[in-house]
Amino acid sequence: MIWYNDKNDGIVISTRIRLARNLDKTPFPSILDDGKKAEVTKKLFSSVLDSHSALAGDFDAYMLDDVSRTDKISMLEEHLISPEMINGKGHSVLVNKSKTMSIMFMEEDHIRLQVIMGGSCLDKAYETASRVDDVIEESLSYAFDEKFGYLTACPTNAGTGMRASLMMHLPALTMTGNIDRVIRSVSGVGITVRGLYGEGTEAEGGFYQISNQITMGLSEREIIDRLSGIAQKLSDMEKQARQALADKHKNELEDKLFRSYGILKYARSIASAEAKNLLSDVMLAESMGIIKPSGKMTPLEMIIKTSPSVIMGGQELSAAERDRKRAEIIRNNI
Amino acid sequence: MIWYNDKNDGIVISTRIRLARNLDKTPFPSILDDGKKAEVTKKLFSSVLDSHSALAGDFDAYMLDDVSRTDKISMLEEHLISPEMINGKGHSVLVNKSKTMSIMFMEEDHIRLQVIMGGSCLDKAYETASRVDDVIEESLSYAFDEKFGYLTACPTNAGTGMRASLMMHLPALTMTGNIDRVIRSVSGVGITVRGLYGEGTEAEGGFYQISNQITMGLSEREIIDRLSGIAQKLSDMEKQARQALADKHKNELEDKLFRSYGILKYARSIASAEAKNLLSDVMLAESMGIIKPSGKMTPLEMIIKTSPSVIMGGQELSAAERDRKRAEIIRNNI
Repeated sequence: MIWYNDKNDGIVISTRIRLARNLDKTPFPSILDDGKKAEVTKKLFSSVLDSHSALAGDFDAYMLDDVSRTDKISMLEEHLISPEMINGKGHSVLVNKSKTMSIMFMEEDHIRLQVIMGGSCLDKAYETASRVDDVIEESLSYAFDEKFGYLTACPTNAGTGMRASLMMHLPALTMTGNIDRVIRSVSGVGITVRGLYGEGTEAEGGFYQISNQITMGLSEREIIDRLSGIAQKLSDMEKQARQALADKHKNELEDKLFRSYGILKYARSIASAEAKNLLSDVMLAESMGIIKPSGKMTPLEMIIKTSPSVIMGGQELSAAERDRKRAEIIRNNI
Repeated sequence: MIWYNDKNDGIVISTRIRLARNLDKTPFPSILDDGKKAEVTKKLFSSVLDSHSALAGDFDAYMLDDVSRTDKISMLEEHLISPEMINGKGHSVLVNKSKTMSIMFMEEDHIRLQVIMGGSCLDKAYETASRVDDVIEESLSYAFDEKFGYLTACPTNAGTGMRASLMMHLPALTMTGNIDRVIRSVSGVGITVRGLYGEGTEAEGGFYQISNQITMGLSEREIIDRLSGIAQKLSDMEKQARQALADKHKNELEDKLFRSYGILKYARSIASAEAKNLLSDVMLAESMGIIKPSGKMTPLEMIIKTSPSVIMGGQELSAAERDRKRAEIIRNNI
């Protein structure tokens, strides 16, 4: 099941493992000419689709140059391709039926293998990624160095080539203002905490991505254990903060969350940041048993489907038109 | 039908005529002892209830000393008695079945005869008040002076003894900020414009009461014509302001009004002033055809039934408790 509709515990929303791999004795994509790129891509496709693994039949292949902009935006929304792949050339991707796996070719590295699942499941996601990694390696040789590990276009990815991340919803820690202290306390162990849309973005709606900063000098197992440990700590603190709100500010909290729900159900125009904050309130309310939304989409799905780029979907829309379209999508589906 | 559930044009909400009368050769209530007060009250009751008029059988009599606080609060809410009559002693009132007429005895004057009706109907309300006035005068003599007209406890009421007023809903003029200019332009012709709850109160929710300042030197007809003229002018300006909002700011207006509706439907705590403002938005939306509320109470009825004194209904409630009770009444009835 696609990650944003899968079960989660109300705090750890989704898990992502991404492995960066490159072929031995082959220049990185940025310096490959079009012909050579196509040739390498063909070999990469074949390594998965023609493998003897049961996985082979589960993937659909997309040459992104032949995919409509609207469909590419959907894939971006589903976190199956990277933003660079919307406008770039010569990219392709394999996506499995349940959209939990995508194998991107000719992005920064020859291969970006990603597993994304709902909830907290670092072990399962890593095992799944490893299995696909092994399938590819059956027919191809990776660029690997005894000292540096897997070689990558950007040196910050070398080593394990792995980026493991968890999307966490920490609205109570954000409301109580304790989040900054918490973030400071986890840095320094090689884990970064940042807003939903990656580096430098604000944590709208109390959504944070925590991921490993370091890919070298630690094994995959160590990276996953450290990340799990931090996630557990953040999770516990968020639970305590929610309990404190419920104990000491129950009426104010309920009023705030219900008002957000009412606005989402009736507003005719909602800006992106406001929508994230209001939908975050509804997620918190649902998780705390205060509101049971019964609409066609979950609040999380609405956050994904009303982000500015997804709303645009390749059309030219003014900010006012986007805000009206966003409000319409939300009130028809909440 | 009680005035707040009767039809109105969306701008002139209700019409009120109040006549102050006193009996000839009888001290004003403030200096009457209890025994004398009871004696005069008996005569006053009799003048209506024992009259040959068809009106007689339409009235219910209430000795307010024997009426529960809760019921008195309801009467105050329905504008059938004055705030002073809640805690005072020796007051009584006759109220007709449809609650459009109340005859208060032993308030500031011996008789305060009031007609209150939904919508704009100064002529009809004045005729109705006059008819009752004539019935009383059939059996009793009023204190009347050739030069000063009807004599009243407070000299500002002498002359016609009449206060005619209209409750107007002017939210568009309030939103556009033009209301102050409008108010200045109508003063100086003996008409005052003030907030819903009388002198010195703020015009929450864009509600204004316009009434005659002068009771002497003008006939009843002249007072009513002047008031009608001003009301017509304010009405036209409000219509223009609404049209301008609809023409130039349709999307923003709809969004604002729908958000107010959503908050009222879901909030768990609403302060009095906020409730008035939000319910005023819903009235405007209904009047402009933007929202069709289908609940058990009209927005106007909810404004009346959630005012602080009505919410309290004689109970001891904290501000937080009142705000929660108000939100509950609104969301169960909107």
